[in-house]
Formats: sequence, C-alpha cells, structure tokens
Amino acid sequence: MARWEAGARERLVVAAVDLFTEQGYDATTVTQIAERAGVTKSTFFRHFPDKRELLVAGQETLSRLLAEGIAEAPDSAGPLAAVAAGLERASGVMGPMNRELAPRLKAAVAASTELQERDALKSVSLTAAMTTALVARGVPDPTAALAGELGLLAFKRGYAEWAEGERGDDDELAGHILTALDELRAASASLT
Amino acid sequence: MARWEAGARERLVVAAVDLFTEQGYDATTVTQIAERAGVTKSTFFRHFPDKRELLVAGQETLSRLLAEGIAEAPDSAGPLAAVAAGLERASGVMGPMNRELAPRLKAAVAASTELQERDALKSVSLTAAMTTALVARGVPDPTAALAGELGLLAFKRGYAEWAEGERGDDDELAGHILTALDELRAASASLT
Repeated sequence: MARWEAGARERLVVAAVDLFTEQGYDATTVTQIAERAGVTKSTFFRHFPDKRELLVAGQETLSRLLAEGIAEAPDSAGPLAAVAAGLERASGVMGPMNRELAPRLKAAVAASTELQERDALKSVSLTAAMTTALVARGVPDPTAALAGELGLLAFKRGYAEWAEGERGDDDELAGHILTALDELRAASASLT
Repeated sequence: MARWEAGARERLVVAAVDLFTEQGYDATTVTQIAERAGVTKSTFFRHFPDKRELLVAGQETLSRLLAEGIAEAPDSAGPLAAVAAGLERASGVMGPMNRELAPRLKAAVAASTELQERDALKSVSLTAAMTTALVARGVPDPTAALAGELGLLAFKRGYAEWAEGERGDDDELAGHILTALDELRAASASLT
C-alpha cells in the first residue's frame, strides 16, 4: 500500500472525529470531512462507503487478527489462553492515534443513536470472530460463545482503561486488555 | 392460524413482519404496514416512532422486567440466581405471538444491516439493564458485567431454542432460558 494512501485514511478519521465533536454527527457531511482532511470526496469514498463506517474503521482488521491469533495459539492453549493470544495480536494495531482520538470518539458515539447501533454491531462482529475461531479449534458450544464474550468484554474494558489512563510510553494496550481478561476470569470463577 | 387475539399493536407487528418477508425491509413503508394491519397511519405512529422501532418493540418492557426481577430476588441470591429471577420475569411477556413470528423476524433481521444494528443495540440495552440492577444489589464490577452478559446469552440462546422447537403447550420460554443459563454456568466453570 502506498504511504500517502495510509496518511489520507488517518487524516479522514481525525477530521471526522473533530467535526463530529464540533458540530455533531448528523450535521457533518462527507464533503466537510474530505475538505478538513485535505483530500477529495472521491478519496473519501475509496476508503469508506459513508461517514458512519468511518467510525468503525478497522473492524475487519480487528476481526481477522483476533481470529488469526486464536487459530495460531498452541494446541495446548485452553479457550481463554487462545482468546488472550487473539487479543494480544489485535491490540497491536491500535496505536497513539487511536488513543488520542478515543475520548472524542467516545463522545461522538454517546451523542448519536445511529453510531451506538453501528458500534454495537461491531461488538457482535468481533465476538463472532472469536467464537468462530474457537469452534474451529474444537472448543464446544456454549463454551466458545462464552469465551468470545469474555474476550470482547476484556477488549472493551482494557481499551477504556488505556484510553483514559496516563500516557506513559511503555503503556501498551495489550497489557490493559490481558489484565482485564484476568479480572474477568477471576469474576467468572467467583460466579460458579 | 393465529391462536392469540391481536390488538392494533400486535396486528402492526404481524403486518410488518409479513411485509418484510414478502418484499424486504427497505421496500416496506409505514403506509403499507398500516394498510395491511387495517389501521390508520396515525395509529401506527401512536404505537411506534418508525418501522425500525417496531421490530424491537418490547425492549423497554423487557429491560424493566429484567431489572425488577433482579432487584426483587432474595437477599441470599447470588448474582446468577438474581439474573435467573430477572430472566424468568421477563420471559413471562413473550407469548405465542412472539413464538409464531420469531422465524420470520429472524429472517428479516438477517436480511437487513440496519435491523442487525438495531438488534445489537437492543442486546446492549438488555445487558446494561441487568448489569445495573446487579450493581444496585452490591455485586462488584466486573462480576456484575459478566453476569449481565451471561444473562443476555442465556436469553438469546433460550429464545432461539424455544422459537425453533416443537410447539408443545407446556413448553414455556422461561424453561429454555433457565436451561441455557445452567449450561452457561457449567461452561463458565470449565473455563476457569
């Protein structure tokens, strides 16, 4: 992929989140987003089908990495260890830009039912990616479904911790997510 | 032949699901739904804000009943026992009409991204209702969040079993949901 292409994509996401924050999601047009990002509308549409999809950009990449990490976990790994491997792999793609945008992105989603719906479907997709990968490893139902839900909860909780925490250079998303998974494992034990 | 007596609200839901099945969600208008149900458009809008909300009708009632059942569970009940009480209370409102419509409703949702998104947000709302009610009982985080997710999984799995199963008169939704919750409890124990 050309370097300038990746730059345009990032600039579009930043411009969109800025505009959503300034004037609201509904009032923001694709034309405005492209203008703010310094690209043409056709460049916008090469990257995203519409302004809503822009906010869940990366869903397919995350799903793929979660599934790959789970598939490639050692045979000896139990369901939660495999989920941890998937989470670790997926969290590698979330960098400083994601962290910097996170609070404004969260505010934009909180202010728009349409974005909340899209965000909820993203969660369903990520959970399904993990559950399907676990089933492919031979994890029985409903254990696979439950482990997929635990993985999603860990991802969301770890991401929130990371996004809201201090900005230390060594503070990786993966650490927050794996800590959250450990807490959920302990909570799960306390329930049964 | 329907075995239940339908008021305007129920007739609207049935008409909508029929039309979505026949011609798709996008092509169906509020005017067509009202006409098929034999009511005026203003009657439609007295019951639902738009055609999408029609398909998640009952979300608020379900949330309220889940929360009430959890709140009123005995003090001695642990988190999952409280969730079971909430699920039992909520499942009481799902009757023969829900069961009869379920397969077509499922097909309509499967065919429309817009409905999948709305359905996903409904799941988030029901989970939040359970989690909040558990926190109010003093269940710590993240145990409450996890128990809420288990409750939602049990609801969805039990509902699917009930909707797809044989139509015995004694076959109550609550039984399927509580069985699913037991299976998830066992799966949870196997994970930890």
